[in-house]
Amino acid sequence: MAGSEYPKLSRNTINRYKGRGKYDYETVNSIVNSVPVLHVSFPTPEEADPFPAMIPMLGFMASFSNPSASLSESLDLYLHGYISSRLMRLGNSSPTGEEGLPLTVAATHLDGLVLALTPNHHSYNYRSAILHGFATPVTDAEEKIWAMEKITNSVVDDRWANTRVPPTKTEMTSTQILKVRIIDASAKVRAGPPGDDRADLKNDELRAKTWIGVIPTWTTFGQPVPSPENRVAKVPEHIVSFLKRENEEGQKNAVLAVKGEPSSKE
Amino acid sequence: MAGSEYPKLSRNTINRYKGRGKYDYETVNSIVNSVPVLHVSFPTPEEADPFPAMIPMLGFMASFSNPSASLSESLDLYLHGYISSRLMRLGNSSPTGEEGLPLTVAATHLDGLVLALTPNHHSYNYRSAILHGFATPVTDAEEKIWAMEKITNSVVDDRWANTRVPPTKTEMTSTQILKVRIIDASAKVRAGPPGDDRADLKNDELRAKTWIGVIPTWTTFGQPVPSPENRVAKVPEHIVSFLKRENEEGQKNAVLAVKGEPSSKE
Repeated sequence: MAGSEYPKLSRNTINRYKGRGKYDYETVNSIVNSVPVLHVSFPTPEEADPFPAMIPMLGFMASFSNPSASLSESLDLYLHGYISSRLMRLGNSSPTGEEGLPLTVAATHLDGLVLALTPNHHSYNYRSAILHGFATPVTDAEEKIWAMEKITNSVVDDRWANTRVPPTKTEMTSTQILKVRIIDASAKVRAGPPGDDRADLKNDELRAKTWIGVIPTWTTFGQPVPSPENRVAKVPEHIVSFLKRENEEGQKNAVLAVKGEPSSKE
Repeated sequence: MAGSEYPKLSRNTINRYKGRGKYDYETVNSIVNSVPVLHVSFPTPEEADPFPAMIPMLGFMASFSNPSASLSESLDLYLHGYISSRLMRLGNSSPTGEEGLPLTVAATHLDGLVLALTPNHHSYNYRSAILHGFATPVTDAEEKIWAMEKITNSVVDDRWANTRVPPTKTEMTSTQILKVRIIDASAKVRAGPPGDDRADLKNDELRAKTWIGVIPTWTTFGQPVPSPENRVAKVPEHIVSFLKRENEEGQKNAVLAVKGEPSSKE
């Protein structure tokens, strides 16, 4: 369906395990918005340095011009973290004439360990997304504070309103938010039990001694530990309900993945 | 101490939060060996494509020539996963004259959500490592099967010996293992409670209503779910003890990180 998918270019088309490839906005965008850490890669400026740079960053997909847009619509990626101004300037001299620093962004969920009869068929259940786009720093104050609020609330629901806001002038200046105009993207999703070869499945002796199945995995958020400086006796409701929901959703998605069902929206 | 650290070059020197930077073999190698997924980035061959390629892969640090080497020694990185032969060939024509495909590899653990008085001081407790090196495919059969055994046992302890081995000729051919000669690497580790500004800490009204502290996070391995094809009634001991240890270690490391103590070796 045109308009609800990222374009399929040669660089983002899944060639191995084609059936696991997804290109729709909703799958890609919901993976990005539910991982706590993104990995961001970009070319380094030095001719003699063959290694791309890579850094872990926080980020989310949203639309500043259409803030109520759903995950199944075209969105921008906002990243929080530091990229030196020297690198950002280099982005502006991109050989392709596009504005911004070219970034490749990865978001990966591990949903389970898939244990098969042979090492060869061992696998993971996972949901991963790779996005390509051009990053520019957000300079508009209104857009920046909107992104700062969303990034804070992506760590813990409603956290922004439960802290000292608005940020000071210094805090506004020292915070860097990048807006990434996405060019293309893809997701790859593996779910379900192990898939073994027919010859191994016919081997009764092997099957009698080899347990096969899936170990569901998810990120657990534990009991909050107060800071030595904390003066609030009771852990507030916005934290308690966040922890409960995340832990339940995490477990539910990992167990759904074993059955080969699509994970619930997060 | 020379000989127990990765060299500090301009590309791997930590400039922001210098105090979080670590260069010793043990810190970097143990982060790599305890994450379930690595993110691997490499330059793309097309002149017109400004985006580095990025893929999630499995891997571990070890030494084939010195298999009993500890994590505090110089090790190679072995990766399991598919990189097209076209890309591998391109690696051989690297402008720097080094043999292999230049890779940047990231390994990241999330240890906790750090909740402060202000959005600005929110953070994560984490352990992350970035490595740079040159990859070549492992062609020696003995080294390849050693690496395949180690990669299988990195998913679940002792899994190799509890499956149908050795691999068939076809399985050996279809499995690709890359050996990465590491040139440099660094780690970045954040632990401890939130660090707020003095002005906010003096704000009694703010402190009376704002809970601050850390939510420890770790990967949970849930109850094993048997495959419809499974015939072994009882989950075997090598799986049960692996789950118990991983869940206990994960929680322990996340809680230790809150106290700002170094995590235990994994």
